[in-house]
Amino acid sequence: MNTEMNIKTLIIKKPLKLDCGKTINNYPIAYETYGSLNEKKDNAILIFHALTGDQFVTGLNPVTKKDGWWSYAVGPNKAIDTKKYFVICSNVIGGCMGSFGPSHKDPNTQKIFGINFPIITINDMVNAQNNLLDHFGINKLFSVVGGSMGGMQVLQFVSNFPNKTKTAIPIACTSNHSAQNIALNELGRQAILADNNWYQGNYTSKNTNPNKGLAVARMAAHITYLSKKGLQEKFGRKLQEREDLKFSFDADFQIESYLRYQGSIFVDRFDANSYLYITRAMDYFDLPRKFNGNLSNAFKETKAKFFVISFTSDWLYPTQENKDIVIALNSIGADVGFAEIESDKGHDSFLLDVPDFLSAMKNFLDKSYSEN
Amino acid sequence: MNTEMNIKTLIIKKPLKLDCGKTINNYPIAYETYGSLNEKKDNAILIFHALTGDQFVTGLNPVTKKDGWWSYAVGPNKAIDTKKYFVICSNVIGGCMGSFGPSHKDPNTQKIFGINFPIITINDMVNAQNNLLDHFGINKLFSVVGGSMGGMQVLQFVSNFPNKTKTAIPIACTSNHSAQNIALNELGRQAILADNNWYQGNYTSKNTNPNKGLAVARMAAHITYLSKKGLQEKFGRKLQEREDLKFSFDADFQIESYLRYQGSIFVDRFDANSYLYITRAMDYFDLPRKFNGNLSNAFKETKAKFFVISFTSDWLYPTQENKDIVIALNSIGADVGFAEIESDKGHDSFLLDVPDFLSAMKNFLDKSYSEN
Repeated sequence: MNTEMNIKTLIIKKPLKLDCGKTINNYPIAYETYGSLNEKKDNAILIFHALTGDQFVTGLNPVTKKDGWWSYAVGPNKAIDTKKYFVICSNVIGGCMGSFGPSHKDPNTQKIFGINFPIITINDMVNAQNNLLDHFGINKLFSVVGGSMGGMQVLQFVSNFPNKTKTAIPIACTSNHSAQNIALNELGRQAILADNNWYQGNYTSKNTNPNKGLAVARMAAHITYLSKKGLQEKFGRKLQEREDLKFSFDADFQIESYLRYQGSIFVDRFDANSYLYITRAMDYFDLPRKFNGNLSNAFKETKAKFFVISFTSDWLYPTQENKDIVIALNSIGADVGFAEIESDKGHDSFLLDVPDFLSAMKNFLDKSYSEN
Repeated sequence: MNTEMNIKTLIIKKPLKLDCGKTINNYPIAYETYGSLNEKKDNAILIFHALTGDQFVTGLNPVTKKDGWWSYAVGPNKAIDTKKYFVICSNVIGGCMGSFGPSHKDPNTQKIFGINFPIITINDMVNAQNNLLDHFGINKLFSVVGGSMGGMQVLQFVSNFPNKTKTAIPIACTSNHSAQNIALNELGRQAILADNNWYQGNYTSKNTNPNKGLAVARMAAHITYLSKKGLQEKFGRKLQEREDLKFSFDADFQIESYLRYQGSIFVDRFDANSYLYITRAMDYFDLPRKFNGNLSNAFKETKAKFFVISFTSDWLYPTQENKDIVIALNSIGADVGFAEIESDKGHDSFLLDVPDFLSAMKNFLDKSYSEN
């Protein structure tokens, strides 16, 4: 993994008190921008990435040499039209694409943090990213947008900074992790911790990586991103380049080969400790709890216009959990639209070419912008 | 794991040609019986166990010192009434509770098989267990019963031996594994293979065990046995013996602690290579394929009376896959009943105290027996 090249970073001098009690300062936020900020500085959209995303939203990711993770949604004339909007996206703190994270050196000891890096929350991620607004001289964003963990950041951002965005699009997310969500993340963490090469998080000093464990974690997560029906339609029981079963532990089925491949390519671009930190942040996220169990109170200070989007086959953050956000907003008379998009592609739908989703998002944004 | 004590075994002399092409003979089948075979020998029920089950269906399991896996369903006056029926259950071949499996020595080399043990199928398991009928002098069973992989064996048994049972109860199962089922099993296998202590299956000769990988596999499987709703009701976001989050990677949430515990106790009673072999057998199971895609043809020779049972919250083998079995039976005019049991307990429902399920099974058995 080479995270040194082509990474734009902003050093945040202002101290940030984290939820865990520790304070960080002089820390890097790695970011990218697309399109141009207009003179009135009212066309900026802050995109928040999901668990394994990064700041390279669209176009070529210079590190992975692949398309950015939201190339279907972001670009000229696309749903988030970079000819019209100024898009900002930064790597979350705790991540591994240049922002302050466990693979960085502790300035006090000059040793790589590993699991001595402070535990990060969604609130911390959002507070850190808010510094980008000052950097660009933006008083109010046009929109905050994100899917999955990105959606959690959207909710947290609007709650923390109720007057700093005109619109908000939380996609395929939840206001807190269910027991099943926590269980699935814990599974991934345990797969990493089970790897002998993890060395209590100090694998870099041993010149190794817990890549086997990280690959297993990725396989587990990948299964949850796809629907049963979608998997069945794409793979079913199709065999992998063979006429019949081989009666061995080889990848006889295409789905096995696919999962192994997904695991193997993931470890080239992601850091195992970052996986631990970011999944932990997701599990800790509990916006209702911050407001004594009443999610509505998280949003009562904002006039932002919301558009909540879910997908029919998403079993990780099912429609009901997205609807609960809509209900909380409705109950305080907030301006909120909601669309449940029909898709067999599961949670991954928000990353894929799902035309109904992309056009719904485009229409909401463009209509809201024309009302400026 | 001590599998030497209190294990009754039958040595099968008759050669068995396995689906992989190899032939085995003089191999052990470990079994238990409950209740008494009557004079007419028409009250015998053969129970097939699931992936991690064994022959110790009810009462104290002498190896684990815990209740047998189907203690809710089997015993005096219970759904499968051992005052009335003679219950037989044996450990599947490929298993690790005494039947011929990868932890046994290869008679040719005197070395432990490991992954040199032949790949086993559901068909092989059933053919091996059929030898128990000869041992007890039973021409025709009263019933064959099993849930999950046990249900697959029920289907395979009736297909292989259409005249050897009066009734059949496949529970919470499928006639072939979906892509998602295969994916989840492959995840478990990869977790084991990722463990440095697996040593290509030769861990016994190294005096170690891939227990970390096996525990991760068990955690993954355990999540799939429970429903999202069931997990939420039982655990939700409850904290584990603490007032607040600890901001660490400890088990803050009860669900994390529960999963870690499930993983840790599993490795005391199960063999990692057996886990590989048995999950492989489940993935290979494809009864329609054996009959040119027409599941009905698997059953056209039998007069057995079927009772198919599914559970509303089972997402591993959902109702639809059980219904497909009913449809296949209906289309050839077979005698088949079907019940979808309302339960929040997910796939695990068949192992738990679900009164509607237990009484449905009891009624079917007792009514069918009274018609004898």
